[in-house]
Amino acid sequence: MKSFATATAALKRRLGPRVVATDAASLDEASYDSAKLPFRPEAVVRVRREADVGAVLELANRHGVPVTTRGRGTTLTGAATPVRGGWVVDMLALNAIAIDDEAGMAQVGAGAKVGDIQRAADAKGWFYPPDPSSKEYCTIGGNIACNAGGMHGGKYGVTRDFVVSLRGFLPTGEFVEWGTATKKFSAGFNLRDLWIGSEGMLGIVTGAVLKLIPRPAERWTLLTSFRDETAALQAALALFRARVQPAICEFLDRESVLCAERATGKVVFAGQSGRPVLLLELAGSKAEVREQKALVLAWAADYATAHRAARTREEAEELWAVRRKCSGAMFELGDAKLNEDIVVPMRNYVAFAKFLARLKRESGLHIPTFGHLADGNLHVNIMYHKAVPAECRTAERTVKTLMKTVVALGGSISGEHGIGLAKTPFLRIQHSPAQVRAMKAVKDALDPRGILNPGKMFEIFEVWKHARLDVKLPWDHK
Amino acid sequence: MKSFATATAALKRRLGPRVVATDAASLDEASYDSAKLPFRPEAVVRVRREADVGAVLELANRHGVPVTTRGRGTTLTGAATPVRGGWVVDMLALNAIAIDDEAGMAQVGAGAKVGDIQRAADAKGWFYPPDPSSKEYCTIGGNIACNAGGMHGGKYGVTRDFVVSLRGFLPTGEFVEWGTATKKFSAGFNLRDLWIGSEGMLGIVTGAVLKLIPRPAERWTLLTSFRDETAALQAALALFRARVQPAICEFLDRESVLCAERATGKVVFAGQSGRPVLLLELAGSKAEVREQKALVLAWAADYATAHRAARTREEAEELWAVRRKCSGAMFELGDAKLNEDIVVPMRNYVAFAKFLARLKRESGLHIPTFGHLADGNLHVNIMYHKAVPAECRTAERTVKTLMKTVVALGGSISGEHGIGLAKTPFLRIQHSPAQVRAMKAVKDALDPRGILNPGKMFEIFEVWKHARLDVKLPWDHK
Repeated sequence: MKSFATATAALKRRLGPRVVATDAASLDEASYDSAKLPFRPEAVVRVRREADVGAVLELANRHGVPVTTRGRGTTLTGAATPVRGGWVVDMLALNAIAIDDEAGMAQVGAGAKVGDIQRAADAKGWFYPPDPSSKEYCTIGGNIACNAGGMHGGKYGVTRDFVVSLRGFLPTGEFVEWGTATKKFSAGFNLRDLWIGSEGMLGIVTGAVLKLIPRPAERWTLLTSFRDETAALQAALALFRARVQPAICEFLDRESVLCAERATGKVVFAGQSGRPVLLLELAGSKAEVREQKALVLAWAADYATAHRAARTREEAEELWAVRRKCSGAMFELGDAKLNEDIVVPMRNYVAFAKFLARLKRESGLHIPTFGHLADGNLHVNIMYHKAVPAECRTAERTVKTLMKTVVALGGSISGEHGIGLAKTPFLRIQHSPAQVRAMKAVKDALDPRGILNPGKMFEIFEVWKHARLDVKLPWDHK
Repeated sequence: MKSFATATAALKRRLGPRVVATDAASLDEASYDSAKLPFRPEAVVRVRREADVGAVLELANRHGVPVTTRGRGTTLTGAATPVRGGWVVDMLALNAIAIDDEAGMAQVGAGAKVGDIQRAADAKGWFYPPDPSSKEYCTIGGNIACNAGGMHGGKYGVTRDFVVSLRGFLPTGEFVEWGTATKKFSAGFNLRDLWIGSEGMLGIVTGAVLKLIPRPAERWTLLTSFRDETAALQAALALFRARVQPAICEFLDRESVLCAERATGKVVFAGQSGRPVLLLELAGSKAEVREQKALVLAWAADYATAHRAARTREEAEELWAVRRKCSGAMFELGDAKLNEDIVVPMRNYVAFAKFLARLKRESGLHIPTFGHLADGNLHVNIMYHKAVPAECRTAERTVKTLMKTVVALGGSISGEHGIGLAKTPFLRIQHSPAQVRAMKAVKDALDPRGILNPGKMFEIFEVWKHARLDVKLPWDHK
């Protein structure tokens, strides 16, 4: 890895040693994210104010220093890993949150925690729907970088759908603002949305204005089980055809349900252990929820082999346990996981279920799968044992087959995690050579020296060939 | 204007004379759009199928021929005017519409009419909210080009919020697809949204997949009047603070109401002629509308000097007349109009009303103003007489003051029309030099020969210095 000692010394002089850390502990901590692939940076810049980012970039651009932006590091793709060394810019201190009550907007710093934004909005009767499962740790800057989604995507949309403006810096260190704090903006090329999902490769976001929606007055939760995966998916489609838009519609396949049952020590529905489930949440005004509840109960009676509604918030939490606990227990099926967040269009749900059943059978691996049926975003967890070479090879082959099939079915290789390092081997399955060339042309135009998050997106990095750190992160499943 | 005779001959050989028209009538018809600024192209290509667009671009790129994409030509900014000659690509034949009933999506050709898309969705119980007032003429391709909005923007969003994927061609003639027919997509840089609003300057869209929402079962319309503009705007803010989200919240200032009253020959509220109004429409399930209706009626009793609700669809249409008829009658106040579609953040509504009153007073011009209060998008119509030089100079000065003030108030110079030619003098009020440089870098990266819609966006074109064609278009206000 190239050394940038002169540039780092200059940066330290400019921002001071309290901002620019070069001690071993700081460098180690910033060397990996939730992908657990360590690459040591040369300095960690803990920005105190927006202008610090401009100063970092101005110097980095002059000296050609790689710059990796980092929030909390919850990304599963390795997008915040400093694979080329250089400087890590830590945004956690830019965590201001202000709610514009009339307009229904939140003005936030890139380092603000998503859970905190939700609570600040809620306190004023507003709602910020995107909710990655790491929301009590992850920052809005990271969510913007990968266009994070969560369980509410089908009805309400993803991060992109809630960003009305961004502020930040070009790789040259120049300050820019994309959009205004308004719901309409048609003035000039839309670099706001080009930045969203660009994983820190086109600019550094320091703040955003987010659109909020009125907080639903009522929520209602229902857990349902089905004969098999196909029956569950077909039932979900029937619900959507009836124009019911649940705020949440989580699917867990047989293997995921068995994981949850092991983790909780309880069978989901007596006598129906291991049956796939759908977990539904309706949200809206009291009248709206009442109306839809009647439709959903009639639907459950028709399609589900069992169902149970929550009468209280505590009962709802109990129903939610099956969804929250399934991931952790998966590590009993293998000590390594390829965690994919593919998307399948609704018209191919049943075809995908058949494909997945065959994939499990033919690979001999456990592949517990769950996800968000209102938008087709499924988490496919390929479990294997890292000490067993044959399983490693099978896992690698399996993930490639998965990606090819998903794209052939008209879907996406990533719905909410982004590319980072982990999906780089599949980018060209999704995108044609012309599409990749256009993306690279945009990258070169905005970041001609290639300093922002180099080594990501376009260069192939096969995570399964790299040793992962054996470390427990606060957001890791218990 | 440069001639491209050789290239045009080659294009004709390639696609045939029925596709490539060079007769005078075709060229004249394609020489202007709703901005009525004529510039003659060298050929009009009436594409029959997607691949024709690729063929056009491949040749244009090789020979450096300017290419201007055109739907129905309803744009008010001159974005579809072939200011550098070359070829006009007419997309009207690519007008297919297919509804995916389960997923709630519409697959459409770029030439599909927005009104037709809405009806096709409606027939299946779905709703496509963006509704520019030209929706019975304009195409979805044009709507995507300028990120069109309409009256539903505050509650539901604008064109951008409903596009899940685009297909089309790079200036090189290479086919590309941005996104999949799914609500989640986080794979690679987001060129989909970069294309949306890029006004035909970065690629040519041939088709799109649009997201739909369940059709509201119920609508309810209320017309309210207020003492003055400030009272009307403050009342709207009070409504939003109460978390009521009307599907539509149209504001008409005193001058607009007087125009409507002249056009309809009726006073809006007896004894209250010329009072500013708010026209509200609630939409949702029956229960939802019932709930919100009660809140809105209580609000009207508190804030409005008069109000009238529609009991039937016919009565609603009658209330709507005030909004629909106001624009046409404006030409009694002047024979020329600078029609601006600025956006003001809610926190500055009252400040803007004060500024506008002063602008009217100081300019001595009529400036009837109406617009969409749920998103701050106001149509400011600066009326003047083109034969009176002093009025022309005042209009020019007035529009510049307007744009500077709007940006100073944290707003936007365009909410839904885009830049085209008409807003080019103001782009640099909205965007810093660094921002404009970044946009130009993206343009050069994707269209290195500069063939797509040259002369727009970045080059200054002062429409008020150009003679406009005296022609009546089908969508011109009566």
